[in-house]
Amino acid sequence: MSVEMEIICVGNELLIGKILNTNALWMAKRATSLGIVVKRITVVSDDVDEIAAVITETVKRKPRFIVTTGGLGPTFDDKTLEGIAKALKRKLEASEEALKMVREKYEAYVNQGKIDKVELTPPRVKMAKLPEGADPLNNPVGTAPGVLIRVKATMLIAMPGVPSEMEAIFEESIAPLLKKEAGDITFFETSIFADNIMESVLAPLIDQTMHNNPYVYIKSHPKGEEDTPHIELHFSTTAKDSKTAKTRLGNAVIQLTELIEKEGGKTRPQKKKE
Amino acid sequence: MSVEMEIICVGNELLIGKILNTNALWMAKRATSLGIVVKRITVVSDDVDEIAAVITETVKRKPRFIVTTGGLGPTFDDKTLEGIAKALKRKLEASEEALKMVREKYEAYVNQGKIDKVELTPPRVKMAKLPEGADPLNNPVGTAPGVLIRVKATMLIAMPGVPSEMEAIFEESIAPLLKKEAGDITFFETSIFADNIMESVLAPLIDQTMHNNPYVYIKSHPKGEEDTPHIELHFSTTAKDSKTAKTRLGNAVIQLTELIEKEGGKTRPQKKKE
Repeated sequence: MSVEMEIICVGNELLIGKILNTNALWMAKRATSLGIVVKRITVVSDDVDEIAAVITETVKRKPRFIVTTGGLGPTFDDKTLEGIAKALKRKLEASEEALKMVREKYEAYVNQGKIDKVELTPPRVKMAKLPEGADPLNNPVGTAPGVLIRVKATMLIAMPGVPSEMEAIFEESIAPLLKKEAGDITFFETSIFADNIMESVLAPLIDQTMHNNPYVYIKSHPKGEEDTPHIELHFSTTAKDSKTAKTRLGNAVIQLTELIEKEGGKTRPQKKKE
Repeated sequence: MSVEMEIICVGNELLIGKILNTNALWMAKRATSLGIVVKRITVVSDDVDEIAAVITETVKRKPRFIVTTGGLGPTFDDKTLEGIAKALKRKLEASEEALKMVREKYEAYVNQGKIDKVELTPPRVKMAKLPEGADPLNNPVGTAPGVLIRVKATMLIAMPGVPSEMEAIFEESIAPLLKKEAGDITFFETSIFADNIMESVLAPLIDQTMHNNPYVYIKSHPKGEEDTPHIELHFSTTAKDSKTAKTRLGNAVIQLTELIEKEGGKTRPQKKKE
C-alpha cells in the first residue's frame, strides 16, 4: 500500500503570482523519489482561519504525512503554527527545547560578532511557540525551527518557506522518516519523444500499452500544437528494485515505440534540457 | 467586497515534481492584476474521484470563479470533465457546439495538407463531451475547447494544461469576465530591499507601518539568512485608481524606510531581476 503525503504551501506571494512554487516542486520530487505518493498540493494565504481550514480538511483525509512550508518566521504574518494550533484545538506555547534552539542561533551570531547580545524579543520568542505536544526540528541553516506534530496516524511537519532552510530541514529530519515508511519502494521514470503523430491518434496506442504493462503509467505531454505534434511520453513505475523497474519501463517503451511507428510516427529518446 | 477565485491544477506531473506549476503562477498573477483575489490553489492527480472531490469541496466554498487547468485532451488520463460531471452530478454528453469547434480544427488541418481527412475518432469526440449545461470556449491555438459551467453563483471554467492554449483561452474568454466582476479595482505593488537589519528586528517596524497605513499590506521575504540579512519588503494594495494606490504605497515605503534607518538598517529600491 502506498504511503501518502500532502503538501501545504502558505504564502500570499504564491497567490498573487509573485513567485513560482519551487518549494512544492522540490518537495514533490524528493518525496516521490523516496517512494512516497504525493496526493495533493494546496496553496493558501497567510490567514489564520484559512490555514486552520486547510489543515482541518487535510487531517480528515488521513495521509501519513502532511508537510507545510512557509509562515514560521518572526513577523506578524507568519501564522502557520497559529493556524495549526487552531485546527488541532491545541494551545500555542513556548517550547523550552525550541527556545534553546533559537537562543543558540543568536548566541552564535554574537560569537561571530554579528550582533552585540542575545535578546529574546517577542518576535524571536514567537518562533519557539509551538502547538502543545509538538517537537521542534533543528534548522541547520536558519533561525526558525521546523515543527513535528503527531495527529493520530498522521505526522504533521511544518517547515520555513526559505528554500535553503526547508531543504536542509527536509534532508536532516524528514527524508529519513519518509524512507522508513516507504520501505524499499522507489520511483523510476523515463521519457521518449514522438513526432509526426497527433495526440488523438496516440491516445488508443497508450491505452493498449498500459493495458499490456499494468505496472507502468504513461502520460503524454504535448509540447507543440495538435497540428504540428511533438509529444513527450513519460513512463513511470514504482518497484522494490531498479532491475524490475527498468525491465518494466523498457518493455513498455519498446511496445509503444512499435505502435507509434506503425502509425507513421517517429520516436526518439529524451534530449537533455527538454 | 472582493471577487474571489480558486485555481485547480490537474496533473500527476505536478505531484511527482516533474514540472514547475507555471500555469498557476501565470493565472494567479493575471487574475490579481485584474483585481481578483485568488484564495487557494489546489493541485490534484489525474484521477476522476480525486478531481470530483476537489471540485465538490471548492464549489462549497462558493468563490465567484473556479478555474481548472489540465486534463481536457484526447487521452485516457484527461479526466477533468469527467471529474467535474461527477461532482456536479451532471451527465457528460457530446455538445454540438463543441463538436463543431473540434471538427473545424481538423478541417483546417486538412486544408493545410497536414492530414488527409477529418475523422471524428473517439479520442477526438472525447474533447467535445461536456457536462450538461456547459458552454464550450474557443481555443484559439489548440484543439480541445475550454469549458464554462455555471453552478449557482459560481462560474466554473476548465482549460487545457498546455500553457499557450490556457493563456489564449484565458485572454479571449476569461479575462473579460474577471474584469467585469472586479469592476474598477486593480492591484498595485512595489518592493524595496533592506540590508543590515534582521527580520526579527524588522517585524515590529512592519507592524507599526501597517497599522498606520491600513490599506497597504507589507510582507517580508528573507533572501539571505537571519545572520546576514537581505530582505525584500513587498508592499501591495488594491484601489480604484493608480494615483490613490501610488500615494498609499509611497507613504508606507517612506515610513518603513525611516524606521529601518533608525535601527541602523539600509534600504534600496528593487533591482531588476531580483
